[in-house]
Amino acid sequence: MTSFGESHGRAVGVVIDGLPAGLGVDLKKIQMWLDRRRPGQSKLVSNRRETDTISVLSGVYKDRTTGAPLTAVVHNEDVMSEFYDEIEAGWARPGHADYPAFVKYGGYNDPRGGGRFSARITVGFVIAGAISHSLIKERLGIDVAAYVKRIGTVEARDLSFEEASKRYEYSMRCPEAEVNGRMEEEVSSAKKDGDSVGGIIECLTTPLRPGLGQPVFSSLDSELAKGLFSIPAVKAVEFGAGFKASGWRGSRNNDTYEIKGSTIRTRTNNSGGVLGGLTMGEPLVVRVGFKPTSSIYLPQRTVNFKEMKEGVLSLKGRHDPCVVPRAVPIVESIVSFTLADMAIRSGMIGPVLGQDG
Amino acid sequence: MTSFGESHGRAVGVVIDGLPAGLGVDLKKIQMWLDRRRPGQSKLVSNRRETDTISVLSGVYKDRTTGAPLTAVVHNEDVMSEFYDEIEAGWARPGHADYPAFVKYGGYNDPRGGGRFSARITVGFVIAGAISHSLIKERLGIDVAAYVKRIGTVEARDLSFEEASKRYEYSMRCPEAEVNGRMEEEVSSAKKDGDSVGGIIECLTTPLRPGLGQPVFSSLDSELAKGLFSIPAVKAVEFGAGFKASGWRGSRNNDTYEIKGSTIRTRTNNSGGVLGGLTMGEPLVVRVGFKPTSSIYLPQRTVNFKEMKEGVLSLKGRHDPCVVPRAVPIVESIVSFTLADMAIRSGMIGPVLGQDG
Amino acid sequence: MTSFGESHGRAVGVVIDGLPAGLGVDLKKIQMWLDRRRPGQSKLVSNRRETDTISVLSGVYKDRTTGAPLTAVVHNEDVMSEFYDEIEAGWARPGHADYPAFVKYGGYNDPRGGGRFSARITVGFVIAGAISHSLIKERLGIDVAAYVKRIGTVEARDLSFEEASKRYEYSMRCPEAEVNGRMEEEVSSAKKDGDSVGGIIECLTTPLRPGLGQPVFSSLDSELAKGLFSIPAVKAVEFGAGFKASGWRGSRNNDTYEIKGSTIRTRTNNSGGVLGGLTMGEPLVVRVGFKPTSSIYLPQRTVNFKEMKEGVLSLKGRHDPCVVPRAVPIVESIVSFTLADMAIRSGMIGPVLGQDG
Amino acid sequence: MTSFGESHGRAVGVVIDGLPAGLGVDLKKIQMWLDRRRPGQSKLVSNRRETDTISVLSGVYKDRTTGAPLTAVVHNEDVMSEFYDEIEAGWARPGHADYPAFVKYGGYNDPRGGGRFSARITVGFVIAGAISHSLIKERLGIDVAAYVKRIGTVEARDLSFEEASKRYEYSMRCPEAEVNGRMEEEVSSAKKDGDSVGGIIECLTTPLRPGLGQPVFSSLDSELAKGLFSIPAVKAVEFGAGFKASGWRGSRNNDTYEIKGSTIRTRTNNSGGVLGGLTMGEPLVVRVGFKPTSSIYLPQRTVNFKEMKEGVLSLKGRHDPCVVPRAVPIVESIVSFTLADMAIRSGMIGPVLGQDG
Repeated sequence: MTSFGESHGRAVGVVIDGLPAGLGVDLKKIQMWLDRRRPGQSKLVSNRRETDTISVLSGVYKDRTTGAPLTAVVHNEDVMSEFYDEIEAGWARPGHADYPAFVKYGGYNDPRGGGRFSARITVGFVIAGAISHSLIKERLGIDVAAYVKRIGTVEARDLSFEEASKRYEYSMRCPEAEVNGRMEEEVSSAKKDGDSVGGIIECLTTPLRPGLGQPVFSSLDSELAKGLFSIPAVKAVEFGAGFKASGWRGSRNNDTYEIKGSTIRTRTNNSGGVLGGLTMGEPLVVRVGFKPTSSIYLPQRTVNFKEMKEGVLSLKGRHDPCVVPRAVPIVESIVSFTLADMAIRSGMIGPVLGQDG
Repeated sequence: MTSFGESHGRAVGVVIDGLPAGLGVDLKKIQMWLDRRRPGQSKLVSNRRETDTISVLSGVYKDRTTGAPLTAVVHNEDVMSEFYDEIEAGWARPGHADYPAFVKYGGYNDPRGGGRFSARITVGFVIAGAISHSLIKERLGIDVAAYVKRIGTVEARDLSFEEASKRYEYSMRCPEAEVNGRMEEEVSSAKKDGDSVGGIIECLTTPLRPGLGQPVFSSLDSELAKGLFSIPAVKAVEFGAGFKASGWRGSRNNDTYEIKGSTIRTRTNNSGGVLGGLTMGEPLVVRVGFKPTSSIYLPQRTVNFKEMKEGVLSLKGRHDPCVVPRAVPIVESIVSFTLADMAIRSGMIGPVLGQDG
Repeated sequence: MTSFGESHGRAVGVVIDGLPAGLGVDLKKIQMWLDRRRPGQSKLVSNRRETDTISVLSGVYKDRTTGAPLTAVVHNEDVMSEFYDEIEAGWARPGHADYPAFVKYGGYNDPRGGGRFSARITVGFVIAGAISHSLIKERLGIDVAAYVKRIGTVEARDLSFEEASKRYEYSMRCPEAEVNGRMEEEVSSAKKDGDSVGGIIECLTTPLRPGLGQPVFSSLDSELAKGLFSIPAVKAVEFGAGFKASGWRGSRNNDTYEIKGSTIRTRTNNSGGVLGGLTMGEPLVVRVGFKPTSSIYLPQRTVNFKEMKEGVLSLKGRHDPCVVPRAVPIVESIVSFTLADMAIRSGMIGPVLGQDG
Repeated sequence: MTSFGESHGRAVGVVIDGLPAGLGVDLKKIQMWLDRRRPGQSKLVSNRRETDTISVLSGVYKDRTTGAPLTAVVHNEDVMSEFYDEIEAGWARPGHADYPAFVKYGGYNDPRGGGRFSARITVGFVIAGAISHSLIKERLGIDVAAYVKRIGTVEARDLSFEEASKRYEYSMRCPEAEVNGRMEEEVSSAKKDGDSVGGIIECLTTPLRPGLGQPVFSSLDSELAKGLFSIPAVKAVEFGAGFKASGWRGSRNNDTYEIKGSTIRTRTNNSGGVLGGLTMGEPLVVRVGFKPTSSIYLPQRTVNFKEMKEGVLSLKGRHDPCVVPRAVPIVESIVSFTLADMAIRSGMIGPVLGQDG
């Protein structure tokens, strides 16, 4: 996957190379995934108005992949660059990459809306994710569902895959009606204060057949973590019992094996589905921690890095008080894409439809 | 870095390509780093006896790098493969990759001591880490120090870089004498029970100049996480405030900028030194969660994957009740290597000594 | 460089990652390079009508590169797919990839106009080449000029860089007026017969400072050859004396060194500017052999690979009797791009304008 | 394949990653291939005495690949570095990389015997080649045979694959007894004069099933050329009719298809087995031009790049008057390795023995 585009440039998009030939490309499905991450859907999120209409430039013929690189773009429409004059003037927004990007690129970077560092680049992730999801679903029977586990101080219990699957019926993507309601209040409250709030997304899959992943540096957890940390605002990733297991003994943490029908399974899934960097027959369980949105309306002390002086910055424009619900399809996309990539590299998915290994 | 080797093969090692020419290679320093991860150092760790003597095969001339690939190996000596007959017979050790590796490689993998999935492969990481540490220290003035933050239920307070630097004077690598003592007890107690225990390592650096890291998929946090999850037993990684920030509001989490002397700094470091995938002038703060050692002496229920039957496995051989203290130089190595790699890719370190960008 | 697009898809284009920030992007220059490879320029070439107008989607801000991936596309306009019904029906055009592509992609490939295997994909090469040329010219003072050395049986003498520089003033890109005229006749004659003809392009540069290139597998000649063989119809590549040197003795072939002013130069340039995969202070000299255009109007015996039967194919549509003159900017583009890539990898060009190594 | 080592370092070797698990590793076969490239075999070649004994460090268990990286080294034994004092003093050997390497690596490179630029690094290529040859032979039934087509002014006619297969029964690797004899004389004559001579190797395969290769930049010819130009002394590569086709018309060059039994074949093979970067059912035909050995005993004018003065250099030590016969297994190795690599990337060879696509 090659990602390109900026927040306020002409387009954001993606080139996906290595897709097998013959895979059905369902533009309606991709559009549905894009709509799930789109801003402007509820009164609680950023009201930037983008239709986010996908345009496929290459790699598809008669609604199927050709084996050639698939390129898809979404044009940027509702661009209000006037709100970004202060960044261009050198005022660093706390929590954003304005200042390090300025240093790194010698001031040549596109500063409008964070430019290359904007969450808008995840449009490309979602396009790749929707296509990858079709691939692993059709070829390997894998399904993926993430849900909002926590927003601020409100936390949901651990949900099953079936429960998680209903996520998009809930405004906060938390398929527990009562908890979802309290999450709404948490976001409303932050919004009212001109503030923002963070959260945690948990992503689950159906059981994954053993052997997906490549030791050492392309282990499944390595590749998933690499992808997940490329999502803006992600600060933490853990698999299975994660940090909790650091406090446990081996006798509690080890997942013991049993034979269930004709397959080998474990009684618990503290590993989160990954052992030695490989899948081992269980569902993937990965949790992703998001910091609160960096753009808040409250005045913040900061510096002007062009003039080397201190000051106070009050942001205008449109900002989500909480990006976590919108990030659910993004996390699902990174997981779907990484599983598809590993399946192709492991030889589980062949280069042409119907010629799998 | 290309890693190779198996637990009970002839050697483990590493090829490092892309090192600048002219870097001094101090074999004594590398050996010291290797000794820090070596088993058999105290009564609390595995008593496998390995001298772990480094042998450099290529890429060094007159004690300096030549610009050609540097290859270094450590030969395996104290190999007691007889303890691994049960794995070869098909009994899956809970928590290990025996079963998924068997499926992935069709039974052709080397099963002795976990083979390719053994923590012994980290010998190569440490060689690369020690050399990378010299590189970033000499060229960019960066220093790195990790310490044991938690073992089981015993947790240290947040330490400063200076405090953390004394880590190797303490048996458990926790430079708080009293906490180190309680950690020793935690491990002894697990050992006495034939059990094991997990823990957390926190890695700190000196302040990193802004701009290190490459958006999107090679962001600094993406690359660090990828490397850290390639260490066996790692299940969780977080930067700065990490998961805690998920429960906070933006006004609390955002690090506000100030001018200190002639440089721009932040008043807090909740970001852990990374914004938008780039360094921003602060020290790196990353925490790594290790699960408890999977090899325990307590009998465990499991299956024989060759004969598809259930049974009970009691491990013999030599196993650490807690790998966390030995993992400190490994975490430091991955961080040093990744910073060196990003510095080279960012053009901060040039291809020849004295010709930096 | 990531290339994408098909002959008769919506667009062809390129994503260029790793460009330094701050490089001026001159759309007029890129357009001029595109025009040089564009069909429909003279009565002797294909009369497919394309304006080939470049559209930059990302990576440029205020007419300079930002350090983010630069994406540029050219939309396909004059698409006459009706001439390609026979390929779709399974008739393999001799000399084209129709048949192997059908096998490789299980019939899912886009067959129209050769799809992904069409020379139209070189539009992307030329965009990357024009930008790369600006980079190496501005930062390293390198200039590049290719000319048509041979068409069919008509061959030009070895030209100097200064002579070669006038190539675009001549219809056949051979800056010897009389030879250019005879080349025109060679092409006219083939065209009249419904046939085609091949040729050789020689590419020269100004002297290249020593040390560009990476041993072993990314030697300068390896990378150049890899790029040049990705141009459709290329069947041969040689550097300096090339195949001729195979018949010589070492005492004749070795370029002896001398001191010229303050620099080290060689008296001859049989090496073509590359020793051990590195530049050595002399100009690059590389020759590229093109086979005659595979699409000819003469009836040819062939097979239908869908119905497994033999038959005779008479091509319609628009075909160049000789692609060699149009390939001159393509060869220059591959050479410019590869030199820029190697210069960046060698640290000769830094990541930001004015911060070179 | 990661290559490492220097001419006079401790060892040369290779790490091969991505080999399928379960492939038989026949050390005797690898040793035989190494012996074919070994110096000291006849009175006409360099009498450096190396036993070139292979040592496998990782990736093999019970004589089969495990799926983990395979590392093999050959230790350097007969190292006479005293002959290289003049290079170290700064005298550039014409035709060698001494001078550009000195500039590139700021003088830190290992100069002894050419160091990293020595043909001794091809030991690693041959190890990888012998293993790759087993892989493509066993899994895909592909065989590879190269022979010496030309030495100096003596040229053999085009040989069939069956004829070429007898190459190692002839001192000059030219399986035409009379021509082989004249080649011997050509080399003897150059040797007597203290000079050297170049040549051409042609490499053939058995017919390759269609579809091997990846457009655009990893086309089969691109990858083969990249590998072949990494062999020291190679200056030219052409496929099929190669440069000759540049003088032909399309009607002569196009290979027309016919049905032979149940397969599609071409009547001629001017393409050399590659169309659009893909195999198309015919044998591969590739010719590789070698310049004459750069090390000659005749005195040559040159410069001292450390002292910036001119002078005359007379080489001592051991030098082949013609490396071409010894390069036959090296060319076969690059071709075998590249075909194996492309077959794995195309999904024709699966990750585990018996699980091919």
